This record gives sequence, C-alpha cells and structure tokens, in this order.
Amino acid sequence: MTEIRSVTATLYQVPLAEVLVDAKHGDHHFFELVTVTIRTSDGLEGTGYTYTGGKGGHAIKAMVDHDLAPFLIGQDAAGVEALYDAMQWHVHYVARGGIASFAISAVDIALWDLRGHRTGQPLWKMAGGAGRTCRAYCGGIDLGYDLPKLLRSVDSYIDRGFNAVKIKVGRPELSDDAARVAAVRDRLGPDRAFMVDANYALSVEEAIRAANAFKAHDILWFEEPTLPDDYQGFARIAAETDVPLAMGENLHTIHEFGYAFDQAGLSYIQPDASNCGGITGFLQVADLAEKYGLPLCSHGMQELHVSLLSARPNAGWLEVHSFPIDSYTERPLVVEDHRAVAPDVPGTGVTFDWGKLQAVQLNA
Amino acid sequence: MTEIRSVTATLYQVPLAEVLVDAKHGDHHFFELVTVTIRTSDGLEGTGYTYTGGKGGHAIKAMVDHDLAPFLIGQDAAGVEALYDAMQWHVHYVARGGIASFAISAVDIALWDLRGHRTGQPLWKMAGGAGRTCRAYCGGIDLGYDLPKLLRSVDSYIDRGFNAVKIKVGRPELSDDAARVAAVRDRLGPDRAFMVDANYALSVEEAIRAANAFKAHDILWFEEPTLPDDYQGFARIAAETDVPLAMGENLHTIHEFGYAFDQAGLSYIQPDASNCGGITGFLQVADLAEKYGLPLCSHGMQELHVSLLSARPNAGWLEVHSFPIDSYTERPLVVEDHRAVAPDVPGTGVTFDWGKLQAVQLNA
Ligand SMILES: [Mg+2]
Ligand SMILES: [Mg+2]
Repeated sequence: MTEIRSVTATLYQVPLAEVLVDAKHGDHHFFELVTVTIRTSDGLEGTGYTYTGGKGGHAIKAMVDHDLAPFLIGQDAAGVEALYDAMQWHVHYVARGGIASFAISAVDIALWDLRGHRTGQPLWKMAGGAGRTCRAYCGGIDLGYDLPKLLRSVDSYIDRGFNAVKIKVGRPELSDDAARVAAVRDRLGPDRAFMVDANYALSVEEAIRAANAFKAHDILWFEEPTLPDDYQGFARIAAETDVPLAMGENLHTIHEFGYAFDQAGLSYIQPDASNCGGITGFLQVADLAEKYGLPLCSHGMQELHVSLLSARPNAGWLEVHSFPIDSYTERPLVVEDHRAVAPDVPGTGVTFDWGKLQAVQLNA
Repeated sequence: MTEIRSVTATLYQVPLAEVLVDAKHGDHHFFELVTVTIRTSDGLEGTGYTYTGGKGGHAIKAMVDHDLAPFLIGQDAAGVEALYDAMQWHVHYVARGGIASFAISAVDIALWDLRGHRTGQPLWKMAGGAGRTCRAYCGGIDLGYDLPKLLRSVDSYIDRGFNAVKIKVGRPELSDDAARVAAVRDRLGPDRAFMVDANYALSVEEAIRAANAFKAHDILWFEEPTLPDDYQGFARIAAETDVPLAMGENLHTIHEFGYAFDQAGLSYIQPDASNCGGITGFLQVADLAEKYGLPLCSHGMQELHVSLLSARPNAGWLEVHSFPIDSYTERPLVVEDHRAVAPDVPGTGVTFDWGKLQAVQLNA
C-alpha cells in the first residue's frame, strides 16, 4: 500500500494581461488557481489543480483542507477510482456540483499524477492510449473587443499555428454579433473551423434567432446558447435550427452529463476535468460520449486535456483557453501542424513552475 | 437606501447528545452551523444561517467571507430578491448547487430578517400570511437504534406532543426494515401519521420492493427512496407501487425542483431554506408546489420553516429534525395541540443565544 501522508492545497490569483469579457460573467481581471500536492509513503508526490473565473477559490481550498485532506490521509493512493467514489459520498450533502466538484477534481488529478509517477506511464497512455495528438482551437474571451481588435486576435491565433478559432457572441444587438461572425469567417477563409460561444446569455427564442443568423457562415458549433440546466431548451434550438450545439463546461456530475446526452440534442460534449471530477470524472464522461457517438472536446486547462483527448478514439477539439495556466508550467502547450501534442513523461505531464507561481500566491 | 455595512460569518460545530446514523451519511457526532449577520446603515442588523451534517462548513464560511461579503457591502439591503439573483450570477461558475447554495441561503435569510426588522413584520406574514400554525412531525436519525430503543424514541415524540413520526429505513436486510416499520405502526396506532426515509440508499428495484413491503402499514410517504438526481427512477417507484413519495432536501436550484415536479411523480415536496436559496429560494419552490398542487413540507431548521409553512395555503408537514438548532435560540420550537406555532415578532423570529453558541464556535 502506498499511503497518503499529506495533502497540501495552495491558492493563487493569476492576473490576466488584459481585462477579458464574455456575455455572462462580466470582466475577468484575473483567474484563480488551486493546486493540490499529495505525498505518499513511498516518497512520491503528485500535483493536481483546478481553476475558477475569479470566485470560489478560498472555498475550494477550505474544502480540501478541512473536509478532504483529513479523510484522505492514511488511505491507499493507488485506489484512485475508489477514493473518487469515497470523496463524492464523504461530502455528498454539500456536493453534487459546485465547490465540491472543483475540490474533488484537484485531488483526483493529483492522484492520477501519482499513479503515473508510480507506474512510469504518461497520462495519454493511462487514459486510453489511442494517440498522442489532437485537433485544437483557440477560444478567445473577446466579447469586449471592437471588430478591428477581434480580427487582430484571430490573426494572432493563425500566426501561432492554429487553424480553428472560437469567438464569443451575446452582444446586446444580434446584428452586431452577426456582423462579427461574418467578418471573422471572411478573415478565416472557408477551410478553417469556426465556433461561437454565448456563455448561456440567450433565451431559447433568442438563441434560435441567433443560430439562424450565424448559419450561413459555416459554424462548426454554437456553444452554450442558453442555460446549461435547460436540456430541453437546447434540444429545441438544435431541432429548430440544425446548427450543431456544444456544452459541458458547466456540468459537474455524471447525472448532469447523462441528462445532457439524453435530452439536449448535442453534437459535441465539452467536459472540464477541473470541475467534473478530475481525470476519473472526465473519463466517465468520455465513455458516455463514446456510447452516444459524440466527439469528446474540452474546456480550459489545455495542458492537461491535450493528453485526455489524444488518448481517446472519439477525440474532438481541444480548447486552448484564454486563461494561460500552461504558461505557469514547465511545458506550455505544444502545437505542431495545427495539432496539440501531449507530453510523454510519467504522470500528467503538467509540472508547475513554482517559482513563477509564488509571486501570485494568496495566504502565503 | 439602507446600505449594507458589514457581513460577518461564524462557524460552529455543535455536538449531538448521541451519535446518530442514517443509511447514507454514516455516523453524525456533530453538525455544523454557519451564521451570517448583516448590519446596515440604518443601524439595524439581521441574522441568517445554514447548517450541514458535519462537512463543508469551512467552505461555506470562506465563500461568504471572500466572495459574497465584498460583493454585498455598499448595496441596498432592501432589494432582497434582486440581491438573491445577483449573488447567484456573481458566483455562478462555481455554484448552481453545492456550497454556494448554502452560502447564499444564509445571506438571504439574514436579508429577510433585516426586512422584517425594518418593516415590523413577522416572517409568517411576509411569506404569505395564510396562517400561524402548521402540522409537524418528528424525524429521527435512528437507523442505528435497536428496536426497543426505536420504540422508546417514538414514545418520546408522542410524550412531547407530536402525533406524527418518521423513522429511517435502509438497513442491510429489507425484512429488518419491514419488521421495524410494522412495530412502529403498531405502537403509533392507526390514527397517527407515519413516514419512512431511506436517504437514497436504495436502487430503484430495491426501493420498489421496500415500498411494497411497507405498504400495509399505511405510510404517509416514502422519502428519498433512491438518488435525488434520478427523477425518472422516482417516477417508476411511484408508478409501480402507488406509495406516495417525498424529496427535496438535496435539491438546491430551481431547475432541479422543476425537474422533480415535472418528472419524479412526487406527492410531497421538502425544500430546505438552508440549502435551496434561503427564504427567497424556498418561496420560489412554494409557488411551484402550489402550481403543481403538492403539499409544501420542509427539511431541518424547524424554528425557521414553521413560519414558511404556516404562511402558505398548501402547507404540508413541518419536519422537526434531530439537529436541535432551535435549542440554541431564545425560542425553541413551540408545539400546541400537535401543531407547530410560528413566532410573531418582527424578522425571522430566530434569535440565537450567542452565549450558548460561543462554547461551540470554531476559529474563534
Ligand atoms: Mg465556453
Ligand atoms: Mg430526509
């Protein structure tokens, strides 16, 4: 038995280079990062993490420190899936989504990192081994950009080696959104993939009008057109417009994903290992996606998801998110021939630059 | 404008007189209580609170301290419903259930207490005014009691003036549960109301067998027979057994309640203002219950829910829970002629005995 000896959570507030705006969450000046490092009796250590748009980080750390760490210490780190279930039940009354999903995710990722260190396996192999690369796109939080700046940011993605781009929609006037979509498609040309994301700012009726307005511009998917809780609303938008829909970043439990797969008429699923139960939770969703025949995409933390997507036969598109967690690691995301490349070292392959992080640590 | 000047959260760990056991949450040695006191520019103060079965209290306090308090200070305390919506959106990415629901609930209850102090109105009037009393039952966390002790506890409820009792089920053998149910019904006689609660420990198939086994003993409702997330599983149990079902203590968002009302085949709904969005969230559920024609019941914090149930035309049964929060207030629950009586003073009518609480405060 490889016994858990310590569980240490640390909270960072990472400033953004500029204020980023979407349709529902307002201004982002920084994001929060919570790392969890677990040390075991065999002298190994593993690190997991989660992140937020700027709120909840203290609560996540409090749950790790006060509810999960005391429960984990002394248990067998090798029983990753058993510990995942046990953590879910341990905090169940205050969980089933919300802060607990983020806290459990960070711990679970640390346990997978340990598993990789113990077995010598990289994450892309542990998670399925289908491959080491996957398609990738840049997702901007760019609703606040005026059109010239929006087009410059699209150019910058192409310059960085990407051939697929997602922009935010959900400005007060649909005509404004439609003009931006048309201009970006024009800039991308016909062969690059192009997605849009409303961050659930629209009613079902508004989303139907918007989807129809965007349709002519060959949209690969329309992401979170309306509230993530409204599975049947999603299905109506899909049925009435034939525009492919995507969501997942706001689904935290396997039950929510089950309802989404069954009822929402989705074409793509986008779980985020930082809030759907870590790697164990993500792989449960990946299995469901395969069963339902949907491409497996992701939200955020590209430096980790690159391994999880590449590993799966039904890999879709990796989101390269505007929160640059990977720039605080020793291996920022690698892109070759438009494809993201998974790290090939034991563990998750996400090794933080602790020196760089120290400058943004809270409660030091 | 009555401006919010301070928001203070305090965490207590309240020991129980004995270890209490149910089918899913294991042993309870204590419960957690988080109080939130808000002071406003007109010199008033209001107190709200939430509670847990023993985990999550630190995270709830952290969210109030770091995410909600800074957001609330300077805002108009009179805009209770607007602040409720604003809080939900403020933490939305880490919310939609879980810790955030508990934190927002505590703040919302404080804002209602302030509203009552400002307007001179008691809660039973603010919440609808239909009446000042409601039916009540004692709910034991008694799965660990042997049969003689279980029957003694039923006797004690009757001695205390109650004419309705709920016991836990979900022991390893159904025959054991069935024998306990038969014995308790025998002790109660035919005229007292009798409910059972499995704390979602059963599969749908097991729950169907259990419901059929309990049926002969005139069960008013079977509570949480299976996972609260499995709305359609509930509906199958209801359809195949005709035993009335109840749930609600684990539903936190209006969307979850909407699915439950629409799909779960419930006969009773049991929201808990401590985790479904405080009084604002509870009243939204109460309105839905009226629309769907279901009796409005409650879970926990009887000293507050007595006002919310009494106030409504579709009042069902108040749970008198085994976590004795009311014994830390200046007015423990009043029961007359088998009915619980709402306080008739301005505000929620829940005034804590701070001296008594101080002895169990954490992080003092
Ligand atoms: Mg998105
Ligand atoms: Mg119950």
